[in-house]
Amino acid sequence: MTTKIISTSPIGVFDSGLGGLTVLTSLEKSLPNENFIYFGDTAHVPYGSKSVETVTRYCKNIMNFFLKHNAKAVVIACNTASAVAYQKLRTSYDIPLFDVVVPSVIHSETISKTRKIGVIGTYSTIFSRAYTRSLEEINSDCSAVEVACPLFVPLIEEGWSDTSVARDITLSYMEPFQNTEMDTLILGCTHYPIMAKTIQSVVGSNVKLVYSGETVGSKLFSYLKIKRCKNESGASGKTRFYVTDFPQKFDELGSCFLGRKMENVEHISLN
Amino acid sequence: MTTKIISTSPIGVFDSGLGGLTVLTSLEKSLPNENFIYFGDTAHVPYGSKSVETVTRYCKNIMNFFLKHNAKAVVIACNTASAVAYQKLRTSYDIPLFDVVVPSVIHSETISKTRKIGVIGTYSTIFSRAYTRSLEEINSDCSAVEVACPLFVPLIEEGWSDTSVARDITLSYMEPFQNTEMDTLILGCTHYPIMAKTIQSVVGSNVKLVYSGETVGSKLFSYLKIKRCKNESGASGKTRFYVTDFPQKFDELGSCFLGRKMENVEHISLN
Repeated sequence: MTTKIISTSPIGVFDSGLGGLTVLTSLEKSLPNENFIYFGDTAHVPYGSKSVETVTRYCKNIMNFFLKHNAKAVVIACNTASAVAYQKLRTSYDIPLFDVVVPSVIHSETISKTRKIGVIGTYSTIFSRAYTRSLEEINSDCSAVEVACPLFVPLIEEGWSDTSVARDITLSYMEPFQNTEMDTLILGCTHYPIMAKTIQSVVGSNVKLVYSGETVGSKLFSYLKIKRCKNESGASGKTRFYVTDFPQKFDELGSCFLGRKMENVEHISLN
Repeated sequence: MTTKIISTSPIGVFDSGLGGLTVLTSLEKSLPNENFIYFGDTAHVPYGSKSVETVTRYCKNIMNFFLKHNAKAVVIACNTASAVAYQKLRTSYDIPLFDVVVPSVIHSETISKTRKIGVIGTYSTIFSRAYTRSLEEINSDCSAVEVACPLFVPLIEEGWSDTSVARDITLSYMEPFQNTEMDTLILGCTHYPIMAKTIQSVVGSNVKLVYSGETVGSKLFSYLKIKRCKNESGASGKTRFYVTDFPQKFDELGSCFLGRKMENVEHISLN
């Protein structure tokens, strides 16, 4: 399937739920004149504990939705979907597609001095070994230690990111990084920036945290510039929101991730 | 829609995921000659954080599946679905339908001496106030305090039920029960029996825990006897398993909830 790139067309951004809003805020800052469509597949959240086949099926439905809206590019603002479905989506759709794995790997590769990189994410993301494979593909001399932290998402959604319980859980999850000389830690889940303070306090200030939103924003900015398809209208960009369900605590979570109230949210079913 | 009751027909049991297997084990013990079909909607798990409309839609797909398999009764082995969808399903399907809310309420009503009952469950279950409404419907003089414990499910699925972190989280969640004179606590989520030891140690031995699987098992036993549709073949019952996805840790979780290995599991898509 193909889409015609027009500079004023929107950029599609999607996640299994609302966590991808942390990526959207970074993109809005990097590209203030662009129009965005955010799609949160809240009827199927979370992707992180589901199989590759199921996640890929959900992602294809969303890609078809973006095609209908003539998106000029799509950002997979979900580490699980990036890790397990990006390659399949790239070969199925003729639309510029940006994942959140590769930009973070390339950035980490550039800044790491010890050449030891840590990655934290959901079970599906870590189980896929997408970050290690991505390092291998660019023939990096860096090595990665990947650790699944499945309790972080529910802790964040419960609003417990800065509690002693969150610190205890983080201490336990970070144990595999001890004595690894890691100096760079990729937050491989779009929820995790909300818990960055606790994570940073446990791993120490010598470890640089890498945020997906910032790295993919930088890559998207360069792409639009090179392809000369930046929105040059001069007007401030607008963002529309679509979700497949309105779950409990929807407003609270949306505001937490987005940093402002989510307005004009439309419900849509892709089944 | 209707189904014809035949004594050798299977009994349908469903949950959003694998937690309902704790109910299935109780049912198998109460009714050793019955055949069961367990349906875990693992492609849509969890229901506990989704809207009433979405959960009801998923449940209707499952009810249609059971109708095709000529189930003689269906047990909603999911507290969220029982709390938010039971009434709608009961009016839409002419098939004996058993929820896990009412039997636990009636049992608690019978055993409570202080007339103060506690209920713990997911956000959707607690937000629905299904337990309080159920007490009101039977004109009980008992009062209920309902508390959402959304971190229990991920803790259990992480295998952390008996850790100090689980105890700290339980201490925090149980605070609203202090000074309430509660003597009966309904475990209003099919996952929670796995964490019963930690919960019991926090609330104290004077508080009686109520398990959905036992209460609905007793009700189903009575129903089949009165209606004379127990399976009298004399052979041991068989259980078949259907899931909509094979998530990470599927085998591990299935064994944890079922108390034995899940065998002959079929994947099915209802979309």
